Amino acid sequence: MSEPTELVTKAEKLDAADELAHKRAEFVLDTASGGAGVYLDGNSLGALPAAVPDRVADVVRRQWGELRIRSWEESGWWTAPERIGDRIAPLVGAAAGQIVVGDSTSVNVFKALVGAVRLARLAGRDRDEIVVDATTFPTDGYIAGSVARLTGCTLRPAAPDQVPGVLGERTAAVLLNHVDYRTGRLHDLPSLTAAVHAAGACVVWDLCHSAGALPVGLDEHGVDLAVGCTYKYLNGGPGSPAYLYVRRALQDRFDSPLPGWNSHAEPFGMRPDYAPAPGALRGRVGTPDILSMLALEAALEVWEGVSVEAVRAKSLALTDFFLECVAHHVPEGRVECLTPSAHAERGSQVALRCDDAGDVMRRLVERGVVGDFRAPDVLRFGFTPLYVGFADVERAARVLGEILG
Amino acid sequence: MSEPTELVTKAEKLDAADELAHKRAEFVLDTASGGAGVYLDGNSLGALPAAVPDRVADVVRRQWGELRIRSWEESGWWTAPERIGDRIAPLVGAAAGQIVVGDSTSVNVFKALVGAVRLARLAGRDRDEIVVDATTFPTDGYIAGSVARLTGCTLRPAAPDQVPGVLGERTAAVLLNHVDYRTGRLHDLPSLTAAVHAAGACVVWDLCHSAGALPVGLDEHGVDLAVGCTYKYLNGGPGSPAYLYVRRALQDRFDSPLPGWNSHAEPFGMRPDYAPAPGALRGRVGTPDILSMLALEAALEVWEGVSVEAVRAKSLALTDFFLECVAHHVPEGRVECLTPSAHAERGSQVALRCDDAGDVMRRLVERGVVGDFRAPDVLRFGFTPLYVGFADVERAARVLGEILG
Repeated sequence: MSEPTELVTKAEKLDAADELAHKRAEFVLDTASGGAGVYLDGNSLGALPAAVPDRVADVVRRQWGELRIRSWEESGWWTAPERIGDRIAPLVGAAAGQIVVGDSTSVNVFKALVGAVRLARLAGRDRDEIVVDATTFPTDGYIAGSVARLTGCTLRPAAPDQVPGVLGERTAAVLLNHVDYRTGRLHDLPSLTAAVHAAGACVVWDLCHSAGALPVGLDEHGVDLAVGCTYKYLNGGPGSPAYLYVRRALQDRFDSPLPGWNSHAEPFGMRPDYAPAPGALRGRVGTPDILSMLALEAALEVWEGVSVEAVRAKSLALTDFFLECVAHHVPEGRVECLTPSAHAERGSQVALRCDDAGDVMRRLVERGVVGDFRAPDVLRFGFTPLYVGFADVERAARVLGEILG
Repeated sequence: MSEPTELVTKAEKLDAADELAHKRAEFVLDTASGGAGVYLDGNSLGALPAAVPDRVADVVRRQWGELRIRSWEESGWWTAPERIGDRIAPLVGAAAGQIVVGDSTSVNVFKALVGAVRLARLAGRDRDEIVVDATTFPTDGYIAGSVARLTGCTLRPAAPDQVPGVLGERTAAVLLNHVDYRTGRLHDLPSLTAAVHAAGACVVWDLCHSAGALPVGLDEHGVDLAVGCTYKYLNGGPGSPAYLYVRRALQDRFDSPLPGWNSHAEPFGMRPDYAPAPGALRGRVGTPDILSMLALEAALEVWEGVSVEAVRAKSLALTDFFLECVAHHVPEGRVECLTPSAHAERGSQVALRCDDAGDVMRRLVERGVVGDFRAPDVLRFGFTPLYVGFADVERAARVLGEILG
């Protein structure tokens, strides 16, 4: 075990060698009321990219205030959902033309999962079971229940590692999380996708806790449909619109349960009959939320010149170092680490369990270390490689140790 | 028929007597690139309220940039959907606690219409028909088709005045527009609602083209469910979130097809089983879109001290005066007015039909008179009483006459 001074020295060395360190300057971090704290909650709400405020001001004052209705064409409002989708695409390993941005994650889970059931039934009408990650962030489970009810399916919860064992001829669709929101466990997307396909079913992946933190490889691994939010590792701002990926080969057969005028082949034709647009556009619904959407577009500029592989390497180095510092600073047995130690099973957060987690997090926040608490007993620390450094990590673990000591 | 100078004089007198004239100063209208034109497209995208830019800047820079995750509580983000719903409520004749803001209009039509079918079936299981306004804005019809398919109903389109004749024991739900988006015709909400109820069915009203322009009286007339957008007469900004009204007496039985974590009775309990929140909250779904939502909240401040009755009186005076000016300036027979002349049947827009409408609107816009074109042959002019004056109206009709002459 290292001495405290050794950890500080190690942090300095790691920060000095960090090829992403310069990205920190592209975020607003050290503010009057935010203090010079350590922000480890970017897995809940990403920090503000410095380019966003001026962009949003321009959207409000000039595009809306001056150009008004003309901005739907002249400012590119109408095509924003697919344009911004194409900006997200390389971050999740997707070629262009497969992602649209808009609506909340929950609404996109609904579109994707109904779409998945319908796709599976094109091949086999009798499929009537939806398998859902039993450890999922709750909204996915609630929406899956609604989809099951509306499509005449039954819902079968299963822990991700148990999923291959429950798949069969009745399976229509499977809804999985790439990274567990609570424990930070990374699930095996390639092998689970292959297992679902071997059973003749469709898979929907929820990328909320992985996109922007690690490689996803949607195209490479043959994922059918995916959804994700943009306000965590993509820093789009509070409640910024989510996205929907529909694999190119499936787009012509994707049959959305929310066929709004924005996904019509001829949206301004004002036709009474619905005819779906080709391509990813088919995932659009109603009028896109422009202020939030264009804030996200500005936020995505921080990814210019960044490789997801470099982000992943730093993310693992950050979580490794945090675990090392926690092992040093926190009395043994005081917390239980829920996050796997194997890199292949770890997302970009560390979850520590202790009975007094709510009180501990409150005291951490008071001391400028911001993570979050998930009831009843979990401390979550998110590591966002674009703006968190190794000295931050050392400090967070040290303060945690002082509180728990 | 008046002489041109008489119309100008009349406009001056009407403007001088206009008790809402002072509200114009609360909007950004005369701008460098927007020019000192006449904006008659507020029925598509409302003008920018002057309070919005600074509010949005504060939300971005301080609430997100400095307070970050703390703003969910400290800046009132979490409760914004119902708080802003309560601000809209008096504009549509609803007591507090029945409206939530969030998602697009299309998505809210989906929630409301599935909810309506389920409510109707609580009373009579065999109901399997959805009646939809045959002249509806297309998205409502597309969504109604999807709802019919998912709930095992058939879809029956009917013009609003034909609706009473098609209602019966099989009718589950009826989806109607308060004001026709194309013609500007105002439908009879009280009598149509009564007819739907007499048939034992539930009604959903789409208020996109009436809310903020005329009294709606949701509570008074016993409307079951209603939806509306906020970017037209409510000036919330491009794609600002829509709203859902669920009558208080029905809230305990409202059964949403989009049960997201935000509508859970205990959203931070992270429970695998869904238990709906009481009240209007049950209409929420996923994480609310904060930037757009709080821009809308600032925009709604212009309604302080404004009565909807005064707005309606001015709206009718504006459309009356526009029709008078058009009758003077435009050669007889050159356009056909699609908007009813009877006040009881008129919304807050005037629709004129002519074969070359697309070209005419292009030339109008070039001359600073902004309305919009709806394919194939309709010129739409929206009259927003909070910022359009009578001199604007006279000028618009005069320029139109010059182009058509």
